[in-house]
Amino acid sequence: MVQASETMTGAGDLDALIRDRVDALVTTRVDELMALEAARKAAKPKKLSIIATKGTLDWAYPPLILATTAKTLGWEVGIFFTFYGLKILQKKRNLEVGTTGNPAMPMPITMPQLMTALPGMTPMATWMMKRQFKDHGVASIDELLDLAVEMGVKLIPCGMTMDVFGFSKDGFIDGIEPVCGATHFLDWASDSDVSLFV
Amino acid sequence: MVQASETMTGAGDLDALIRDRVDALVTTRVDELMALEAARKAAKPKKLSIIATKGTLDWAYPPLILATTAKTLGWEVGIFFTFYGLKILQKKRNLEVGTTGNPAMPMPITMPQLMTALPGMTPMATWMMKRQFKDHGVASIDELLDLAVEMGVKLIPCGMTMDVFGFSKDGFIDGIEPVCGATHFLDWASDSDVSLFV
Amino acid sequence: MVQASETMTGAGDLDALIRDRVDALVTTRVDELMALEAARKAAKPKKLSIIATKGTLDWAYPPLILATTAKTLGWEVGIFFTFYGLKILQKKRNLEVGTTGNPAMPMPITMPQLMTALPGMTPMATWMMKRQFKDHGVASIDELLDLAVEMGVKLIPCGMTMDVFGFSKDGFIDGIEPVCGATHFLDWASDSDVSLFV
Repeated sequence: MVQASETMTGAGDLDALIRDRVDALVTTRVDELMALEAARKAAKPKKLSIIATKGTLDWAYPPLILATTAKTLGWEVGIFFTFYGLKILQKKRNLEVGTTGNPAMPMPITMPQLMTALPGMTPMATWMMKRQFKDHGVASIDELLDLAVEMGVKLIPCGMTMDVFGFSKDGFIDGIEPVCGATHFLDWASDSDVSLFV
Repeated sequence: MVQASETMTGAGDLDALIRDRVDALVTTRVDELMALEAARKAAKPKKLSIIATKGTLDWAYPPLILATTAKTLGWEVGIFFTFYGLKILQKKRNLEVGTTGNPAMPMPITMPQLMTALPGMTPMATWMMKRQFKDHGVASIDELLDLAVEMGVKLIPCGMTMDVFGFSKDGFIDGIEPVCGATHFLDWASDSDVSLFV
Repeated sequence: MVQASETMTGAGDLDALIRDRVDALVTTRVDELMALEAARKAAKPKKLSIIATKGTLDWAYPPLILATTAKTLGWEVGIFFTFYGLKILQKKRNLEVGTTGNPAMPMPITMPQLMTALPGMTPMATWMMKRQFKDHGVASIDELLDLAVEMGVKLIPCGMTMDVFGFSKDGFIDGIEPVCGATHFLDWASDSDVSLFV
């Protein structure tokens, strides 16, 4: 409570007056600015950045399922396709499931790893996985790619590995981002809330 | 700029007094509030979110080792088990090491990839890895899972891939979180400090 | 609300003067301090933390390419080498490409998975990948490691898995960080902007 001096000598009182006034104003103003800052942060959409490096059918699902799921939550999402992951962007893609080297792959019958290397096993496992996903109402890779483009997921092909592995932009699906490098992608991803290397 | 009347004794002085006083008070108060904000942030536990997608013995270790390690640092930790990773949650799990396709797997003797596909290699590599970890005092997957549950690591099974791969909640170990989807997990993980796709 | 004495000439004016002056100064000062804080945050380098767990030629590239790329952007970068990833740090490393289990591996001719397990396929694929990268002007793993050390990328070997897999610090290249554990690395990585498990 401010007590003004009767005689107006009261420099100390003036000091107290200023101090109290300032303190109240600063607190209010800082609280206001901090609330504004918090609101600005909360309003900023979350960002998911994925690096998709694998080109088999099984490992094509996680980036696309996570990306489209994040979009339904209103997130900003980008997938950088590099190395074998570039196969996912191909128009004429033929993604297969690798069975050898993955004893965790659920198989219709138990078999040694040597049998998983038999000529017919890769197409069989690929067919099985496609059927399993379809039977359980999960979208196919074709559908997930269409959905991702439609929802605005940034699908970004890595220029450097396109050259190395011999991929051409002409062979890729429509609706994807311009070819770019890791520099550009890292810069874009630098304020990610969740980042994943698949 | 405040223009004080000349008829008011010491108006310029008053102005300077106010300015200095305000400046000092504002700085102090803002510093205080910012320190409070920083302390609040520092007190908030760090968060680690892991997506565990692989179901072999070797790839079961990293999510569980990282999760329990983060817990010792006081972090909040969640692992979303999806795709082959669901095998890790099974009560009657039989995690094996895949040798084919991984020429980086340390082998007792050098051998071509074809030999790694021989019927006996998967159980042999699995046995070797278990012995190696045990001999060096590293907990087994059973022990790491028990520890994770005890420490409060959230172990979350992915409902969608449970359906696709034919896993049932009844077959999973006790102490895990309710079955949920990628939407729920991404939302939980949206303020992660470290996020990893294993 | 400040109540100035009636006997004090211009006390109300003084009150208003102080209020306005304070209000302006507080706003200016708080804005200044918040801008300083924002500038401090913006000036803080971004941080990339990578866990490198794979020891084949193909999976040695991504951590080193991403790490050196992030360094060109001025980021702070650390790679924690664990599990098979420790092979990358070996002076006498012989990184090979696994062909079995990866039907996405571009092959000179179409072949069933069984053929990918033939004795000559691993060295052939390794030779092919090295040539492909060299032909397209991409640095070799040797060059990328040299560059990483020179640029100040922290290359950190995981002590626990060194023991388990039988790696010794003497066998590693020069210029790397002291051996440490997951606890130390997670603590370092806890303010990462981008974190990746390769």
